[in-house]
Amino acid sequence: MQVSEIQWSKTEKEISRSAFDRAYQREIDSLIQTVTETAKTISDIDQVWQLHDFLSAKRHEIDGKYDYQYSSLIFVFARLVREQWLSIDELEGLEAEKLAKISALVKML
Amino acid sequence: MQVSEIQWSKTEKEISRSAFDRAYQREIDSLIQTVTETAKTISDIDQVWQLHDFLSAKRHEIDGKYDYQYSSLIFVFARLVREQWLSIDELEGLEAEKLAKISALVKML
Repeated sequence: MQVSEIQWSKTEKEISRSAFDRAYQREIDSLIQTVTETAKTISDIDQVWQLHDFLSAKRHEIDGKYDYQYSSLIFVFARLVREQWLSIDELEGLEAEKLAKISALVKML
Repeated sequence: MQVSEIQWSKTEKEISRSAFDRAYQREIDSLIQTVTETAKTISDIDQVWQLHDFLSAKRHEIDGKYDYQYSSLIFVFARLVREQWLSIDELEGLEAEKLAKISALVKML
């Protein structure tokens, strides 16, 4: 699958950017909620370091995942759909071949 | 100052351990309070990463500081007094020479 050679129209770029930003915001909102809820229950130092470990992992994961490059966008969208930060419906307007590739990848992940 | 050659009596060891543990608990309690208070005010992702940075620094600092070894205890106590996690009065019962060394170091830190 030579995703690096896929072309993106102006409309597709707009749809992609919007979907990408929406997924990011959802994951961030969820993270903020998790942190604030978790922090309320902290009563010993082990729980503080567990929160630290969780944030270290999340930061690494989010930094790696939300890298907006057209060469990897098919994979990024498949992952975001797989993780339920994005619905495949929100990518409507991308050409059928791209959507088929994303759907196929979702099942493989 | 050859602190590595200082001898500690059984009573002094008990006083030291107790003071050390008390300072640790105070710093930990303060950290837990800071984390829970800070988490309440988080509303964007930058603040999440600021909390992560803060915890990374604190973990490193606390891991390094609370190393209970008699060869470095004079320095550890001086630092804890300087940072106000411990009062010099709580070390009462250590021999005068040790207390004088700790007090001298507090002024140098």
